[in-house]
Parts: sequence; structure tokens; C-alpha cells
Amino acid sequence: MSEFRSIVGVFPCQVHWGDCDPAGIIFYPTYFRWMDAATWAFMDSVGYSAKRMRGEHRAMPLVSAHCEFLAPAAHGERCEVRSRIARFGGKSFVVAPEIVRHDGSALAGGSETRVWGRYADGPGSPLKGESIPDSLKALFHAA
Amino acid sequence: MSEFRSIVGVFPCQVHWGDCDPAGIIFYPTYFRWMDAATWAFMDSVGYSAKRMRGEHRAMPLVSAHCEFLAPAAHGERCEVRSRIARFGGKSFVVAPEIVRHDGSALAGGSETRVWGRYADGPGSPLKGESIPDSLKALFHAA
Amino acid sequence: MSEFRSIVGVFPCQVHWGDCDPAGIIFYPTYFRWMDAATWAFMDSVGYSAKRMRGEHRAMPLVSAHCEFLAPAAHGERCEVRSRIARFGGKSFVVAPEIVRHDGSALAGGSETRVWGRYADGPGSPLKGESIPDSLKALFHAA
Amino acid sequence: MSEFRSIVGVFPCQVHWGDCDPAGIIFYPTYFRWMDAATWAFMDSVGYSAKRMRGEHRAMPLVSAHCEFLAPAAHGERCEVRSRIARFGGKSFVVAPEIVRHDGSALAGGSETRVWGRYADGPGSPLKGESIPDSLKALFHAA
Repeated sequence: MSEFRSIVGVFPCQVHWGDCDPAGIIFYPTYFRWMDAATWAFMDSVGYSAKRMRGEHRAMPLVSAHCEFLAPAAHGERCEVRSRIARFGGKSFVVAPEIVRHDGSALAGGSETRVWGRYADGPGSPLKGESIPDSLKALFHAA
Repeated sequence: MSEFRSIVGVFPCQVHWGDCDPAGIIFYPTYFRWMDAATWAFMDSVGYSAKRMRGEHRAMPLVSAHCEFLAPAAHGERCEVRSRIARFGGKSFVVAPEIVRHDGSALAGGSETRVWGRYADGPGSPLKGESIPDSLKALFHAA
Repeated sequence: MSEFRSIVGVFPCQVHWGDCDPAGIIFYPTYFRWMDAATWAFMDSVGYSAKRMRGEHRAMPLVSAHCEFLAPAAHGERCEVRSRIARFGGKSFVVAPEIVRHDGSALAGGSETRVWGRYADGPGSPLKGESIPDSLKALFHAA
Repeated sequence: MSEFRSIVGVFPCQVHWGDCDPAGIIFYPTYFRWMDAATWAFMDSVGYSAKRMRGEHRAMPLVSAHCEFLAPAAHGERCEVRSRIARFGGKSFVVAPEIVRHDGSALAGGSETRVWGRYADGPGSPLKGESIPDSLKALFHAA
């Protein structure tokens, strides 16, 4: 599977008081919360809003998630998550988010492997993976 | 509406690293997370498990929540939430949780006003309040 | 203590996937997380940035918190917290945040009672309440 | 660096309502919150309590974190994190947590790479990595 030439989604965020731990820096699961929210925002940016996803009974369950922590972030710092699609598989895809501080410093780099899924019989029913259509891939392809 | 003579549910919990903020003490929304989990555990203790609630399409949306913070809790401290029903209304009820440290010190005292609700047409459909049956009230009544 | 004539701070936020619960609506402690972050942003807006607060060893521990939940918020919805100071006491103050959806609907209205505090001997040392100076009150006074 | 023959720490946990997302299953950053809490509990089990860590100005900042998600967990399910030390490096170590449901099903398997650190001049001062003493390694060595 070769590297996908992806557009980049930008998700602004900020380190809040409650996102930090007694060491005074960001509590690491916060980065994963940001990565998740950034992926939903990335989908939204190409036309798959939360509302549409909900209406079509879609979800994007995780297969795996990873993050390298490069530098700590302190309370109040403004950041952004820059997401791109690293790869599309048959029914899964890999998002590669980078977390960057307002001053340009790289804070973290991660990846999320997700399934493109749907609830067979509506909310509450089992989730099934679906083949990712070329039309979806095209939305993320950089010109 | 007179005070209800309630049994007491006990929900053990512990202050984790990520529950604390840079002041080194518990981040206050953590108390509300505990109170919510304690209320679900309290329901479970009288026969309304998460699984049953799900199967019957029930939910307990909040009308209001309140907490007084009496003493700070530090990382690692073991605590428990002691929940009781303060009042039952027609379709709503008030839970009054107290948060106590292992050494017996009171940390916080709160209240949650909740609706006894059900999804009219299954998950995803609008939630409607239902009259609280006497049989439910009886389950919480102290002997 | 009469009502304080306060400026209004605006804190934009959005309901993320992980902020919601299995009922598909916002998990209520999320509102308290927002309210806390909004209060810090409100302080920042009048010159008390996170960095300054840290440098001066200040904190704003809670005495109590309250929230009325008026309408549910769904995944993806953009909101804002509108904070104002309801009252200043000797060493404490009350913030009254309202949470409003992008379409103008009121979602929740809360209050936080906080102490204006300082670590007597730097981070890690006990926190002491301090008298709120008139100069601080003036920063929040509406013209 | 060869595999370390580690004791296993057990951290009981439960999937709470607010740990789940609108798909009705656990929100993935919850697993990282559990892994973090489990690592602190593992340290506690060998004599490094939160209180001692705090007193000695120690912290365990993350270099990286990873998790494979094997099966979804639903609200109310009881689980445990089984942690072991996969490797000790000079100033860092790798914890390998497995998350298992009460019925024995594996839910997730992860890893955390952490630095053994200390605040050079007390809380708030910069964090420095320290050589991991053999005495610490011995505490985790399986007989």
C-alpha cells in the first residue's frame, strides 16, 4: 500500500487547565482526544459532517492508535492538529495527525488506523466494515 | 415533596494522575464524572444494570447538577461516593452523593436531578420522561 | 452582596464525539470542563494569562459548582460559553457561565464559586485565599 | 535490549457511561487513561506510591504510547489492566499493558515508553531523566 497524497486538515485546539496533570503539562490521553476530534473535523471538511455520519449510521472504530510525544505542552498554549490520510486500505484507513504549537514547534506525531463502518440495522445494531469507495478517497486527494 | 428514606449505594473510586490538575489536586469535573458513575452503579445495585437499561432503552438525563467542594483530594487517594435518593418526583428524582476519603473526611457533597426517561422508538429516537413506578421507588426504600 | 455589572467573556467550543455518551448527547461533566476552561479564558482576556497565573503562583480553587441543563447538545454542534462575574466577595467570586448553541439556543446555565488563591511558598505548597484587589474587580467592570 | 522477566500488576476498572461514545462503546482515549492509571498503580504496588513519587519529585513522562484495539467494550463491563515491564533502558522503560474483560476476552494491548524523571529543583522546575537503578528493576523482576 503506497503512501496516499493527502490534503491536510487543520484542527485548532488549546491546552486547558483540566487537560494537564500535576506535572503541569498536558496529560497524554489528551493528545488522543484531540486526534479523535481532529479526524471527525477532517471528515467534516470534505462533506461528512457529524450530522451526515449519524444520518447514514456510520462510525469509524479504531484498530490501533499510536503517538510519539516530542515536547511537553503547558496550560494555555494554543496548538493545532494537522491531519492527513497516510493510507487507504480496503475497508480501513490510516490518519496521521501532527500536533504543532502556535510557535511552530512539533509537540507530537501520531497515527490512527480506523475502519470505515456502518451499523447494519441502525444505531445499536452491530457495526460492519464497508469498502471505502473511490469517491471518498478522491475527496482527500491533494490536487 | 418530603425527604425519601433511602438506602445508600457505595461506589469506590481513586484519584488518578490524570484526574488532577497542575495545582496537584483533583480537577473538579472529575467529581461529577464520579457522581454519574456512582448513580449508574446505584441503579445496578437494585437490579437496573447497564445491560438492562440498554435493553429497555432507558436513560437518566440530567436536569441539574450541583457540588460543594469541602476539601481537596490528592493523587492516589482512595475515596468512595455514597449515593442516596433524596427525593422522587413524578418523572424525576434527585440523587444526593457524598464523596468521602478513605480516612473518613468528607471531600464533597452534591446533587443530581434526573429524569427517568426512555427512547420512544429505540436508540437514536427522542427521549421521553416516564412516570416513576412505585416498584422502582420501593427498591431504594430503606427497611 | 449586590450583583456585579460584568463584562462578558466568550469561549467558543464544540461538542466532540468523545464528549458524548451512548445516548448520543453531551455527557454532562463536559459542561463543567467547558465552564472551567471558559473561566481561565475569561481571566486571560483581562490580562491574567495562564502563564502569568503560573508565574505568580495563583490558582482559583472551587467552593461550589452548579449547572442547569436546558437542552441537549449533539455531536458536532458549535457552542460558546458566555461568562460573566456575578459577584465579588472578599476572597471569593462567582462566575456565571451560560452555554449557548450556534443557533442561539440556551443549552445550560451554571455558576462557579471560586477562591482567589495563591501558593504561599510556590507550587506544591499550601494554597491560601487572598483578598481580591479593587484593581482586579475593575478589569471585569462593564463600562 | 532483551525482554524483561516482569511481575504482573493488576488494575481493576469498569466501563462507565461517560467513558463511552455515541456508538455505545468505549471511547478509545479511555484505554490510555486506564493504562496511565494502571502504571501508577503498578509503581505503587512495588513501593512507589503517589505520595512517595510526589515527595521525591518524581514523574514518568511519556516518550510514546501505542494501543491495538481487539474488541469493543460496552457500558458497565468490568475489566482489568494487566501491566508488566517489557524492557528497561538506561533512563527509560516500556510498560506493556493488556486490557482484559471479566470474562477473559482480550480487549486491547498497548505499550507506554516512559522516562524515569525528576524535577531538578522541585515542582515546577524542569524535569530531568535519571538512570534507572538496579534496585528499582529488581522490584519488578519475577522470581
